[in-house]
Amino acid sequence: MQNSDFIREECGIFGVHGQKNSDVVAQTYLALYALQHRGQESCGIAVNDDGVIGYHRDLGLVPDVFTRDILTGLGKGNMALGHVRYASKGSKSRSHAQPIVVRHIKGNMALAFNGCLTNSAELREEAELSGAIFHSASDIEVISHVITRARLTARSIEEAVSFAMDKLKGSYSLVVMSPSKMIACRDPNGFRPLCMGCKDDNIIFASETCALDSIGASLVREIEPGEIVVADKNGVNSNRSHCAGKGTLCVFEFVYFARPDSVISGVNVQEARQRAGEYLALENPVEADVVIGVPDSGIPAALGYARESGIPYGIGFLKNRYIDRTFIQPTQLERELSVKIKLNVIESTVRNKRVVLIDDSIVRGTTCARIIRLLREAGAKEVHMRVSAPPFMHPCYFGTNIDSRENLIACKMSIPEIAKWIGVDSLGYLSVGSVLKIAENASCGFCAGCFTGEYPAPGPSMKAGTKFDRRISEKAGEEE
Amino acid sequence: MQNSDFIREECGIFGVHGQKNSDVVAQTYLALYALQHRGQESCGIAVNDDGVIGYHRDLGLVPDVFTRDILTGLGKGNMALGHVRYASKGSKSRSHAQPIVVRHIKGNMALAFNGCLTNSAELREEAELSGAIFHSASDIEVISHVITRARLTARSIEEAVSFAMDKLKGSYSLVVMSPSKMIACRDPNGFRPLCMGCKDDNIIFASETCALDSIGASLVREIEPGEIVVADKNGVNSNRSHCAGKGTLCVFEFVYFARPDSVISGVNVQEARQRAGEYLALENPVEADVVIGVPDSGIPAALGYARESGIPYGIGFLKNRYIDRTFIQPTQLERELSVKIKLNVIESTVRNKRVVLIDDSIVRGTTCARIIRLLREAGAKEVHMRVSAPPFMHPCYFGTNIDSRENLIACKMSIPEIAKWIGVDSLGYLSVGSVLKIAENASCGFCAGCFTGEYPAPGPSMKAGTKFDRRISEKAGEEE
Amino acid sequence: MQNSDFIREECGIFGVHGQKNSDVVAQTYLALYALQHRGQESCGIAVNDDGVIGYHRDLGLVPDVFTRDILTGLGKGNMALGHVRYASKGSKSRSHAQPIVVRHIKGNMALAFNGCLTNSAELREEAELSGAIFHSASDIEVISHVITRARLTARSIEEAVSFAMDKLKGSYSLVVMSPSKMIACRDPNGFRPLCMGCKDDNIIFASETCALDSIGASLVREIEPGEIVVADKNGVNSNRSHCAGKGTLCVFEFVYFARPDSVISGVNVQEARQRAGEYLALENPVEADVVIGVPDSGIPAALGYARESGIPYGIGFLKNRYIDRTFIQPTQLERELSVKIKLNVIESTVRNKRVVLIDDSIVRGTTCARIIRLLREAGAKEVHMRVSAPPFMHPCYFGTNIDSRENLIACKMSIPEIAKWIGVDSLGYLSVGSVLKIAENASCGFCAGCFTGEYPAPGPSMKAGTKFDRRISEKAGEEE
Amino acid sequence: MQNSDFIREECGIFGVHGQKNSDVVAQTYLALYALQHRGQESCGIAVNDDGVIGYHRDLGLVPDVFTRDILTGLGKGNMALGHVRYASKGSKSRSHAQPIVVRHIKGNMALAFNGCLTNSAELREEAELSGAIFHSASDIEVISHVITRARLTARSIEEAVSFAMDKLKGSYSLVVMSPSKMIACRDPNGFRPLCMGCKDDNIIFASETCALDSIGASLVREIEPGEIVVADKNGVNSNRSHCAGKGTLCVFEFVYFARPDSVISGVNVQEARQRAGEYLALENPVEADVVIGVPDSGIPAALGYARESGIPYGIGFLKNRYIDRTFIQPTQLERELSVKIKLNVIESTVRNKRVVLIDDSIVRGTTCARIIRLLREAGAKEVHMRVSAPPFMHPCYFGTNIDSRENLIACKMSIPEIAKWIGVDSLGYLSVGSVLKIAENASCGFCAGCFTGEYPAPGPSMKAGTKFDRRISEKAGEEE
Repeated sequence: MQNSDFIREECGIFGVHGQKNSDVVAQTYLALYALQHRGQESCGIAVNDDGVIGYHRDLGLVPDVFTRDILTGLGKGNMALGHVRYASKGSKSRSHAQPIVVRHIKGNMALAFNGCLTNSAELREEAELSGAIFHSASDIEVISHVITRARLTARSIEEAVSFAMDKLKGSYSLVVMSPSKMIACRDPNGFRPLCMGCKDDNIIFASETCALDSIGASLVREIEPGEIVVADKNGVNSNRSHCAGKGTLCVFEFVYFARPDSVISGVNVQEARQRAGEYLALENPVEADVVIGVPDSGIPAALGYARESGIPYGIGFLKNRYIDRTFIQPTQLERELSVKIKLNVIESTVRNKRVVLIDDSIVRGTTCARIIRLLREAGAKEVHMRVSAPPFMHPCYFGTNIDSRENLIACKMSIPEIAKWIGVDSLGYLSVGSVLKIAENASCGFCAGCFTGEYPAPGPSMKAGTKFDRRISEKAGEEE
Repeated sequence: MQNSDFIREECGIFGVHGQKNSDVVAQTYLALYALQHRGQESCGIAVNDDGVIGYHRDLGLVPDVFTRDILTGLGKGNMALGHVRYASKGSKSRSHAQPIVVRHIKGNMALAFNGCLTNSAELREEAELSGAIFHSASDIEVISHVITRARLTARSIEEAVSFAMDKLKGSYSLVVMSPSKMIACRDPNGFRPLCMGCKDDNIIFASETCALDSIGASLVREIEPGEIVVADKNGVNSNRSHCAGKGTLCVFEFVYFARPDSVISGVNVQEARQRAGEYLALENPVEADVVIGVPDSGIPAALGYARESGIPYGIGFLKNRYIDRTFIQPTQLERELSVKIKLNVIESTVRNKRVVLIDDSIVRGTTCARIIRLLREAGAKEVHMRVSAPPFMHPCYFGTNIDSRENLIACKMSIPEIAKWIGVDSLGYLSVGSVLKIAENASCGFCAGCFTGEYPAPGPSMKAGTKFDRRISEKAGEEE
Repeated sequence: MQNSDFIREECGIFGVHGQKNSDVVAQTYLALYALQHRGQESCGIAVNDDGVIGYHRDLGLVPDVFTRDILTGLGKGNMALGHVRYASKGSKSRSHAQPIVVRHIKGNMALAFNGCLTNSAELREEAELSGAIFHSASDIEVISHVITRARLTARSIEEAVSFAMDKLKGSYSLVVMSPSKMIACRDPNGFRPLCMGCKDDNIIFASETCALDSIGASLVREIEPGEIVVADKNGVNSNRSHCAGKGTLCVFEFVYFARPDSVISGVNVQEARQRAGEYLALENPVEADVVIGVPDSGIPAALGYARESGIPYGIGFLKNRYIDRTFIQPTQLERELSVKIKLNVIESTVRNKRVVLIDDSIVRGTTCARIIRLLREAGAKEVHMRVSAPPFMHPCYFGTNIDSRENLIACKMSIPEIAKWIGVDSLGYLSVGSVLKIAENASCGFCAGCFTGEYPAPGPSMKAGTKFDRRISEKAGEEE
Repeated sequence: MQNSDFIREECGIFGVHGQKNSDVVAQTYLALYALQHRGQESCGIAVNDDGVIGYHRDLGLVPDVFTRDILTGLGKGNMALGHVRYASKGSKSRSHAQPIVVRHIKGNMALAFNGCLTNSAELREEAELSGAIFHSASDIEVISHVITRARLTARSIEEAVSFAMDKLKGSYSLVVMSPSKMIACRDPNGFRPLCMGCKDDNIIFASETCALDSIGASLVREIEPGEIVVADKNGVNSNRSHCAGKGTLCVFEFVYFARPDSVISGVNVQEARQRAGEYLALENPVEADVVIGVPDSGIPAALGYARESGIPYGIGFLKNRYIDRTFIQPTQLERELSVKIKLNVIESTVRNKRVVLIDDSIVRGTTCARIIRLLREAGAKEVHMRVSAPPFMHPCYFGTNIDSRENLIACKMSIPEIAKWIGVDSLGYLSVGSVLKIAENASCGFCAGCFTGEYPAPGPSMKAGTKFDRRISEKAGEEE
């Protein structure tokens, strides 16, 4: 539960290539609704009616932005592209919503992506040096420039995408909709998921399989790391010239981001989380009377821990269903209440019991400490916290939004210190070795850089990043 | 899950008597937020600032109706009264929102209630014969008239409430706020819950204890069936002249309505639901590989069934968190999808398994049949449905809104016929005997009229009800 | 212009009796839109479909409250009743919106009125002593009680209205819609206008003829002071038992309230205002170069002044068309700007000219002083202010909302003092004698109590008014 | 009145360069509110706080888009740029709102403009050939590209603007806000107005002087055709290298677009319109009893006609103040009513009179015909229509949005035919010669191309325009 404020996925994407006048807008709407957990800040849909591209995007949740009138206004088409974007408190801005729709010398195109470029500043500067203009600070606008420039010499839009991939560094699962083609690609590491499905004659690209399920489509396969897949009226074609191995998927997709009913690289996410709980029980056993999970993210691992340990599983909390809607701030009532409004302990589950409490992470520790206090007040005799992932210690450069190091409790305290600070009788984390095994039958490798500090690809060039920021925020001198 | 459209609680109420300028409005807001599951149609708050009563009420959820500006506009006070009302599709109307605030010869008062009068039409006619006017068809307006007329001869508002209780038939948990007093009472059967709590010097009345928890208040005790409790500046006084036994609480509060973390008559609701699952396992055993529950209502009983049977508990479904917000209708895409959007099967849990599926009711059977089909499509080898309550067969006259008999599948088919129709390998319901034992340590008795057709109090006089309806909907003739 | 904040009409009403399924709702919508100048706070429409009365009312302007969906939702009917209510800054409340719809022993009815009772408190107390309840402090609720009680012994609803008129004191133009009849009546003084029109077979009652024009209906005649007119399927009947002379219409209807295109008692309002300007020129001549009016209310009198005096008429100001929508407060920028935003001087009209400035009133004088300063800054050599009504000196008890005496500049200063204070070279008001002649061909007499202090009917009993207020706002003692 | 649907100005702009933390946002808000008549579709404000540029823009009127919260959120700054854009029914789109804010190699800038490029397609294609991307089809985006590319070799932003002016063809009044400078320029023809004002130390650029008045600023002078003016911390500098004569201002600014209280090139707009009425009387005399104008646009010319002819001026119509808000369509009631809702005849002004009716244009003729019918029904004996401008016969390429030729009645009928069709006794237009004299003391020349078909600058290259449209709306073939 507590992660929602501190760790965030960047985005979810969905594209469908279908027949003239098929219901691609309704399918995209439903799919974005299923992908809503990947981004709650903004959303958008672009629809392609034989080359004429219309779109709508705004801040807000999918069902709030896409009212009946808006959906009707988008009309019919033969292709559609959709996007949901994460909620960032400070920088809510309509100008970051996707898909973006641009016009270039060879026509128009819409783009939507999930990921994070590490050479965004360099690519931006290169474009600007030849007179390019940017309307936002987003990576997707940089990508659209790189593809557009490549398009000047490429024979086709898919060749332009391939040329662009030679220049783009970092993580990207990208879908490009041209007047007549839908093109999906993943960076060669395959940091972010992207799969292909089908329904009747429609070809579908989606961040997760739950989006396919929501419209009754079937999974065809994953897009491979480095692969470019083109869907057009002639069918589906693949370009694997940038492929180089099984890739390094962000392991946090299995730990936290993806929806439990999704299947990634052949492994069900819910199952991987239960397995994390099982390994956790093996590595950090304890004598106790009940295992409970923090809703919703800690529940599957709690079930796995209970199964492996033989300690009964119990429902420890009631989570308010209307949680996202309130604006009451901690300062308005006592601070302690801010957790209670969202999460109430079910006393009969924990009174006079030795409780194993499972969650998937401890970020700042404050929410965690409050939850533990609630358990104590409700009569728990002992509280043993078990975390179904290793401690966060390092930044992510590939699309996971983690709190800054000075806020991460694991960067500031040892495990016994954390245990004392949050008020538990014992504390155990899953080992890095085990987290890499929770989806061991997966067809992909994993990036666990946020746990280990070892990354499968270089991070960003700081110098360039700094330069860009300076230009935006500083007063221009006479060189102007 | 499927009950939300077909079975509904009437309302939730909350009142707080405090000190001048205490934060009674914020407390009422938070408490209504915790009671939101008892009513999603409309809500309202009345605040009493030394006898001056202001209020706001509207259609919508608590966090949508009570924006920061509205809450600020309500100001401070020493007492507040709040209400949430159920969602009825046809008759959404602002004029039914509570609390109502009225002025009479001795001053003003605000009223909020949960329940259903069985002699509403007679009381209304009696008032009209002496010239009374009604602005709505609601019971609460009838109650306000009965109390007001009693007040003409009573020495105090609480005596007027007592006089009124001699006339009111049916179910009512009622809180009345006068300029200087907060008065709570329950009908002598105590059909609907009502408890008393305290926080610092504040005295609180609430439908459920979860509302107390949400503001950090402590439970003092239940209001007894037939009891009148008065909170004013001199403290708390009780009048038990209408008390007559331990009452007959609606058993459906334990089965479905109340929030799992609430405690009613000394019994935790979550625990009662798990116990329902245990009895269900004892009464309806089956050989199977996994027990799953339909979220959210079937989960606790599924856990109980798993514990008692020894069959592993699993998480069978992912429920979309944004479920309440969408407007997509079954007609817009295939009908089958309407369930899939809200609920997706976690295939790894059920594939090639013999599945026990638990829910707390089968109303029309259509949603249930679709869920079962999803399980089959996901590879479940066998599906054994177990329902943690007896079949609905009879109307409720005391505040539960049940679908009409012609829609209730249990009124039309035998259990084997239902099993065949919804597509399960076996079907079992909890017996009436067992449902009455799920909260057997409770200090109260139970009404199970909707299961048995035997009611602890008379139903409404149909003749009068008809007369009233006729007057509203028929053309008036020359007698006018 | 400046009157909008300080002097307000109470309301506008409209009722139509037609055929089954005629478009009475659309007609009422258009008519209220035409009557919007009589009230901008709230509005409402009640529609009667063969005795079943539905309604919608809310705070806001007619086109904002009645969206397409709301209008469609009201459906069809054979009668409809509409109301607009004035904008009061302090006490905006949905509970004062009209029409009100009530149910009583003989059926239901909707009521809408324009006026002000002077014995409201006594009638309320009388009702309360027999157990009545009030949901608001409005006169219309009192009227509904008086009619309902009369209905207990009356043979018909129109007889009940007649009985009620024996008890009601003050001003009222009232329309009552019963299941099968539409009944209009005016108080015996006829303080507020009310006319009857027809279109095809529809019988229409409206505050002003501009509402008839807006739907293409024809004026039949005025409702006489004291008259009751009943429209039902048998046609139109009149009861003149309370009639007693030609009445005393509020002269301010001609001076300010009514729309210029309306005709009241046979006199066009625009013409009356021009005539006011003509008398003003005769009574207060001055040598000057141009006559200008403060938009919109001063324009007709300016034209009359110009005609009579022979001084050219000019357009002195540009009024911002979007004036009602802004929220910028005087404190946010310099105070002087608050007028400039709404009204800009057209410099070429006034530079180096001797200007006659016409408005219909000076209330507090502050806005007026600012306008005059703008004229000076724009180069006016002299400014001679002429007011097309006598000075306000007295309260109105019959439905005009005037600022309190301590704010009325004419109660605090002599005319030369006012002239000096607002900064004009000379100042003249229309005499009482002349204002009573501006509509001298009218079929009615006039009330000019706000100018003279002499009223054609008694004002309210203060004692009772006080008592009521005390009960609402004071803390109740032990007598409760 | 009838012009609002058929002839539209493109836009209004406003920029202010001030001191750190001065209230530039509030000033821009008020100024846009005063310029609202130049565009009701969308509006926007960009604020510059020492080089950091924030902005907000949306569809809607100024007071609706800029709520208190939005204005507060924009914060303080030392410069601000604002824009209002015209209302087009078909193509309402947020993506056309201005100002636009872009980032380029030398920093960021905001741009707002009023006008219409004639070589937009060529400039766009040139940019695209070197890899440029466009996010919309707007001229302002093309301008931002041209300036950005010029900036690569220019020594300063103002030099880049000067280089850009070598390439831009057509009409443009443009304001560019760089991190430290506010730059205003007009095309060498000066088709659209732009003036400079000051208030305290603030330098202001605005489309019309009414915007200066609204914030209490003084007019300094017009920006000359072809001039570039730069305001920065060192003061104001002018570059006249593109100046070439007194220019050709769109005469329709005087006839219709500008607010009557504005002064353009030394001439007050209201005065010019009165003079149009005077010439109209000289050229088209008639014997009549009263002169009336169609509100609001026909009023000043009616006054001029009355003065010159000696026929009395009268107020012939009441215009509903809430006119913009309703959605009632002609189809919902009789077509004839659609005018009556907005405009009602004041019968006493016209009954039994010979009426001269003045308006500033006849576009399609349908609204005009309906108004004339209303006058006849109200008893006008004769109706003589006089139009205070020549007939529209030709398209405008420089920023006026005129209905297409097939809809222009003057392109299809002779004047006598029009007179017969709209139902008047006589019809006269102002001559081209006279319209060019209504502002004869102005310091500028005039474009009257829409009346004469003779333009002071070339129109657009159709070929290029066509090519661009094709690319957006046609299906791309295999060349893609």
